[in-house]
Amino acid sequence: MFQAKAYSATSKTSPLAAASIPRRTPNDHDVQIEILFCGICHSDLHYARDEWNADMPAIYPCVPGHEIVGRVAKVGSAVTKHKPGDLVGVGCMVDSDRTCPNCKEGLEQFCPSQVLTYGGPDKHGTAPVTYGGYSDTIVVDEHFVLSIPASLDLAGAAPLLCAGITTYSPLRHWGVGKGKKVGIVGLGGLGHMGVKFAHAFGAHTVVFTTSPSKKEDALRLGADEVVISKNANEMQKHAGSFDFILDAVAAEHDINAYIQLLARDGNITMVGAPEKPLSVGVFGLIMGRRSFSGSPIGGIDETQEMLNFCGEHNITADVEVIPIQKVNEAYERILNSDVKYRFSIDMASLRAE
Amino acid sequence: MFQAKAYSATSKTSPLAAASIPRRTPNDHDVQIEILFCGICHSDLHYARDEWNADMPAIYPCVPGHEIVGRVAKVGSAVTKHKPGDLVGVGCMVDSDRTCPNCKEGLEQFCPSQVLTYGGPDKHGTAPVTYGGYSDTIVVDEHFVLSIPASLDLAGAAPLLCAGITTYSPLRHWGVGKGKKVGIVGLGGLGHMGVKFAHAFGAHTVVFTTSPSKKEDALRLGADEVVISKNANEMQKHAGSFDFILDAVAAEHDINAYIQLLARDGNITMVGAPEKPLSVGVFGLIMGRRSFSGSPIGGIDETQEMLNFCGEHNITADVEVIPIQKVNEAYERILNSDVKYRFSIDMASLRAE
Repeated sequence: MFQAKAYSATSKTSPLAAASIPRRTPNDHDVQIEILFCGICHSDLHYARDEWNADMPAIYPCVPGHEIVGRVAKVGSAVTKHKPGDLVGVGCMVDSDRTCPNCKEGLEQFCPSQVLTYGGPDKHGTAPVTYGGYSDTIVVDEHFVLSIPASLDLAGAAPLLCAGITTYSPLRHWGVGKGKKVGIVGLGGLGHMGVKFAHAFGAHTVVFTTSPSKKEDALRLGADEVVISKNANEMQKHAGSFDFILDAVAAEHDINAYIQLLARDGNITMVGAPEKPLSVGVFGLIMGRRSFSGSPIGGIDETQEMLNFCGEHNITADVEVIPIQKVNEAYERILNSDVKYRFSIDMASLRAE
Repeated sequence: MFQAKAYSATSKTSPLAAASIPRRTPNDHDVQIEILFCGICHSDLHYARDEWNADMPAIYPCVPGHEIVGRVAKVGSAVTKHKPGDLVGVGCMVDSDRTCPNCKEGLEQFCPSQVLTYGGPDKHGTAPVTYGGYSDTIVVDEHFVLSIPASLDLAGAAPLLCAGITTYSPLRHWGVGKGKKVGIVGLGGLGHMGVKFAHAFGAHTVVFTTSPSKKEDALRLGADEVVISKNANEMQKHAGSFDFILDAVAAEHDINAYIQLLARDGNITMVGAPEKPLSVGVFGLIMGRRSFSGSPIGGIDETQEMLNFCGEHNITADVEVIPIQKVNEAYERILNSDVKYRFSIDMASLRAE
């Protein structure tokens, strides 16, 4: 065991602050990573403030962060995937049972025993729960460590590990590509990645937003059209025409307005998770044999595929880089949707403390 | 034009009563059918009482009935599919545009110009709207006239034209067969057909019902297991295990209790259409990449495929045969779920009037 620098919260009402946390000495299959950047996901905030208490009670101190990019510092004796000096990433998971049918299919995101990067049970006994990426160092089993293409901007690559794979996976799963008309609802951290991927896959990409001010930016990100979703006439023009819609809005909203826009056999998939149930009109699903789905992150193989795709197409998140000392301020700005489109923490600021 | 005997409602509050209605003299592509049996669908009742007024206002007089079985009396000069004496059926549609992409794929149920068997616009100008199967005769374009296998009991075959295809189509669409675990929610007119088909397709078939009294009957119909849906413990045993669930309940109910029972990538499809929107928890969809869908009837080709399948496997609906004079009483009994599982009107009773 050794001590690492981190930012942690000690209760649901306390701000994040500098702390020292234990990390395990790498085992045979472990990779020790010097963290360079860590994206800030809205989940970090929910967990740090114990807002998921029913489903996943926070255990303090908590160290959030699951959009991790860094450089390999050390590897265990049996590690073959990575070597010191490699650029690597870690996403939302750091372990799973490796034996269940989901794991065997490379779909670790559905493993009933997956270990989340923060707040999960620490099988190694280093700490009561796993500690995430708001830290200078992390130690992770090589299977859950991804390779980051060297061509990518590292600050912008960090959010690929959660926001990237969360949008890439359902777009691939539902066959988005050339000849398809695809909608992206909500232009935030997830949505802006959805636009980049749908565009890169060759789909006709339509962004739905409530803010006319976001139109220009949506076009810059790769949208072919932008629809102001509050304008019923504009919405009606697209009725029955979408093959797929990715809904990245976590606030309550009228999902039926989007279901009506789906073509026959069209699907709308939620990647944002509104706290309250959504009200779904069944007639809208029956007429057109439409589907309403959800999707979490992706598996490890698919995450690597996504990173390689990003390397080939030079895709990263649009980020605002901040020092870790501004993380509490960043949380407030996230609540005000005041970020384009993701914060990425430069971990040099933690080392300098 | 000629006059046919029928039972019609003249307002949303008046009972159905004997009437004379116009039918067109068969055109070149028309088939004139002597109706032998007509099933009673819950939709008949909704329409006759104008309960769908926002979506489909009833126009009076109205003649319901879209589960029609009969014998060809006459055919137009260009008809090739059927000849006098053939046993035939007519379901929920009597026309469509035949040119849209849906029609070209044999999916007339999604044609934006489909003409419903009753209450649709009568293109031939015979009447303000189309009149359905509570009649001694109907005249329909040959494309929308199905062949009924001679081996089937005709009273029980009538409901195949709506309840049959409405359950057959989604079970086929979602790949139900050997090695799949399939749930059927609600054991009524639709649900009991769903059980018969899922069983005949070789799936492990589980019936969900609120009534312990229906258990024995569910097993007789082909269920491998019966779950009393009010028993949370019994439900929990099946968590995450279903490939597909067919939900045939039109009353408000907790859909999330069933979404939790789906395996990864599982789908639940509604064929019952609750009037009010259902409340859907998004987390349940995200965890497991599950889908919530709807499905209407099927296309003409698939309806014929279903009828042929029924002929080969001797599948019909369980019906209570009534004379048309009891149709108003039957409506009340449907409202009390007092029928196992479909009423089928013997049209000889109308001819004898």
